[in-house]
Amino acid sequence: MERTLSEETPEKIGKKVCLSGWVYNRRDHGKLIFIDLIDRTGIIQLVCGEDAAVLNVQDVIRVNGEVTERGEKNINPHLPTGKVEVKVSKIDVLAHSQELPFDITKEKLDVELPTLLDYRPLTLRHPKVKAIFKVQEVIVSSFRQTLKGLDFTEFQAPTIVPSVTEGGAQVFPVEYYDKKAFLGQSPQLYKQIMVGVFERDFTVTKAFRAEPSETTRHLSEYVSLDCEMGFLEDWTDLLDLAEKVTLGIFKGIKENCQEEMALYSATLPVYKTHFPRLKLQEAQEVIFKETGRDVRGDPDLSPEDEKDICEWAKKKHGSEMVFITHFPTSKRPFYVHPDPDDSELTLSFDLLGRGLEWVTGGQRIHEYDKLVSNIKKWGNDPKDFELYLQAFKYGMPPHGGFAIGAERVTMQTLGLANIREASLFPRDMKRVDHHL
Amino acid sequence: MERTLSEETPEKIGKKVCLSGWVYNRRDHGKLIFIDLIDRTGIIQLVCGEDAAVLNVQDVIRVNGEVTERGEKNINPHLPTGKVEVKVSKIDVLAHSQELPFDITKEKLDVELPTLLDYRPLTLRHPKVKAIFKVQEVIVSSFRQTLKGLDFTEFQAPTIVPSVTEGGAQVFPVEYYDKKAFLGQSPQLYKQIMVGVFERDFTVTKAFRAEPSETTRHLSEYVSLDCEMGFLEDWTDLLDLAEKVTLGIFKGIKENCQEEMALYSATLPVYKTHFPRLKLQEAQEVIFKETGRDVRGDPDLSPEDEKDICEWAKKKHGSEMVFITHFPTSKRPFYVHPDPDDSELTLSFDLLGRGLEWVTGGQRIHEYDKLVSNIKKWGNDPKDFELYLQAFKYGMPPHGGFAIGAERVTMQTLGLANIREASLFPRDMKRVDHHL
Repeated sequence: MERTLSEETPEKIGKKVCLSGWVYNRRDHGKLIFIDLIDRTGIIQLVCGEDAAVLNVQDVIRVNGEVTERGEKNINPHLPTGKVEVKVSKIDVLAHSQELPFDITKEKLDVELPTLLDYRPLTLRHPKVKAIFKVQEVIVSSFRQTLKGLDFTEFQAPTIVPSVTEGGAQVFPVEYYDKKAFLGQSPQLYKQIMVGVFERDFTVTKAFRAEPSETTRHLSEYVSLDCEMGFLEDWTDLLDLAEKVTLGIFKGIKENCQEEMALYSATLPVYKTHFPRLKLQEAQEVIFKETGRDVRGDPDLSPEDEKDICEWAKKKHGSEMVFITHFPTSKRPFYVHPDPDDSELTLSFDLLGRGLEWVTGGQRIHEYDKLVSNIKKWGNDPKDFELYLQAFKYGMPPHGGFAIGAERVTMQTLGLANIREASLFPRDMKRVDHHL
Repeated sequence: MERTLSEETPEKIGKKVCLSGWVYNRRDHGKLIFIDLIDRTGIIQLVCGEDAAVLNVQDVIRVNGEVTERGEKNINPHLPTGKVEVKVSKIDVLAHSQELPFDITKEKLDVELPTLLDYRPLTLRHPKVKAIFKVQEVIVSSFRQTLKGLDFTEFQAPTIVPSVTEGGAQVFPVEYYDKKAFLGQSPQLYKQIMVGVFERDFTVTKAFRAEPSETTRHLSEYVSLDCEMGFLEDWTDLLDLAEKVTLGIFKGIKENCQEEMALYSATLPVYKTHFPRLKLQEAQEVIFKETGRDVRGDPDLSPEDEKDICEWAKKKHGSEMVFITHFPTSKRPFYVHPDPDDSELTLSFDLLGRGLEWVTGGQRIHEYDKLVSNIKKWGNDPKDFELYLQAFKYGMPPHGGFAIGAERVTMQTLGLANIREASLFPRDMKRVDHHL
């Protein structure tokens, strides 16, 4: 008999069905045993006899039965299948579960972060935890769809790279045959090379940072949503694009993740038509005026600054998203384009949302000579950038792009306290699946 | 003035336009200089005066001019824009190219493989080389779309893994802080874990094999298209799914890559309704009968066997795709489900196409005790699989899946001689961008 999915049961009242899934919950009422069965489409109530007494939570079962309407007063309005139940005539156990280390049937999984991660294959099955990765899937696919709609081509960036490209300390070395290689800190150089091929390109790829500190917002391995665009008319084309992509992600979540957002009582960031844009110096003046903290002249925003400026943008502009632009040259990588009006500054930006950086990007240098000179100025050897430099030797248009941290956006959208919750199998200083 | 793309020019006859792109080719005819301008949508002929004499191939330019119809006898039928040209009034050089190391304007780029890779940022710009990665994009997105249409959820598999899971020799160690970790040989264990979460899942991810040999069909880093499905009714559900996904890829290529396929005079593999299915033993009998080579009793197919059986399938069944099933236990990893009819064999398959393996997969063991026992039998320590084993401890349905090598499919579809041509930045024993 063909399998019926739980979400299909309301259309099959009076029909014999076969359902498969996990025992999500069990409630005994004398000789009647109620089982909540969960499958990939949701939960359905099974009414079983005493033969269900052998079933434990997380057992995998297949049942035969008949779909019936629940009595008016037994309707569960919180469940899409809440008007029906299945009177079970036969139960097959496909796999038994061992005793669970904690109660997984509560509406909110009540475990600390280490337990959440130590038991990942189990905790990921909790509807509220699972929801995080449904939202993440939509974030990634909305990024992809928005860019495809704008004529961007997706490419596969390499992971193993020959040399350290963006600051020396934070890389993982790889024993590559009898040589040494590294894990890419970002697909930056490759997405720039690809501008010479496709003009507009993007990649969904892993990036690796050997951050020797433990924060709630960094991972050693994360999903980077990277794009790059050639033939900029003006560098602000990039801010327009970043806004468009962000709004594309919001749209995707709105259309596909109502239920998941509701589980977290989460709402999308508010904004008014466009996200406000401030130069770093202006942002620092605002912080001084608003809080009295004098960070004017600092070369970057601290986490506290990011929180303050986001608070101000929400209050002043009704926007939980805000662009900060024109970071100083000293704090940006060698490839960032200088501001033609002030060579101490760059045509760079961060997009902040709810107190944290979501997106970072900018225009790049496209002139071969300037790039070679900058590589030297930053203390690197142009020989280590031979392949990359070829792109510029043989003609590159003005271009730029940005990167979005998929886990960051997931975390900030759902209001999670720790970025580890937004990574299926988070890697950090102390953990690669297990404790190290 | 807003940019016009080359493909838009036929609709703008008589209009003033601004175009940007690369000088793809230059032909001097006395005082007239013809430039083929290439942008992301294709090539358009520019008619320039003597000021174009400074232009070299791969210079990046922006031009102003007027779209005009070509005279009847000057129409280029090979070009979508072949009925028009642009009379240029103004040229801006956005970036000059240095002298090229070889002629990039020929229809077929006439360089050896090492040169093709040594100058990757340049050779990727050649229309015929670029086409490979347009096809690859479609292969990946068709895989994704087909599975999404079947209720599969995409997830991001980790790259850094704690231990060696599928045979010890061929892994790359990573210096992970002060510990040792590895690059994943496949997302196998994670996609199985995710069956417990989403029932049906897939991932597009990097896999790494430290193959100490140089062949034309292996890469050290490749793109693995992996999927896994729970609640199998029968293990042949997997063969049906692999066929469906393969046909989804063919459909994607057919609908989106006509031009790219034409550049390679390539056609999609032929087949009749379904791909034939043979047990390994049957395939070996066929080889013996057809060629006299006696490989009966061999535990696996050699590259020569794969060629022979594909040739036979084409001749006998009119199919360039053929499933080989039931490989012996000794040649498959610990997690592969034994054949209930013969414990020496497994419920496993390879899908061969045009003489090479495209897909490999099978049903997995879903019973905790059997899996623990197999891990030990294969000489591994269950402690190294603690996280993975949790999925089985807490109830897993019968499940299975498969993996497709994106570069393999690209190579076999276009008829490329070496898999390195199907990887943007191929990594092997001797190369990570540069020679090692």
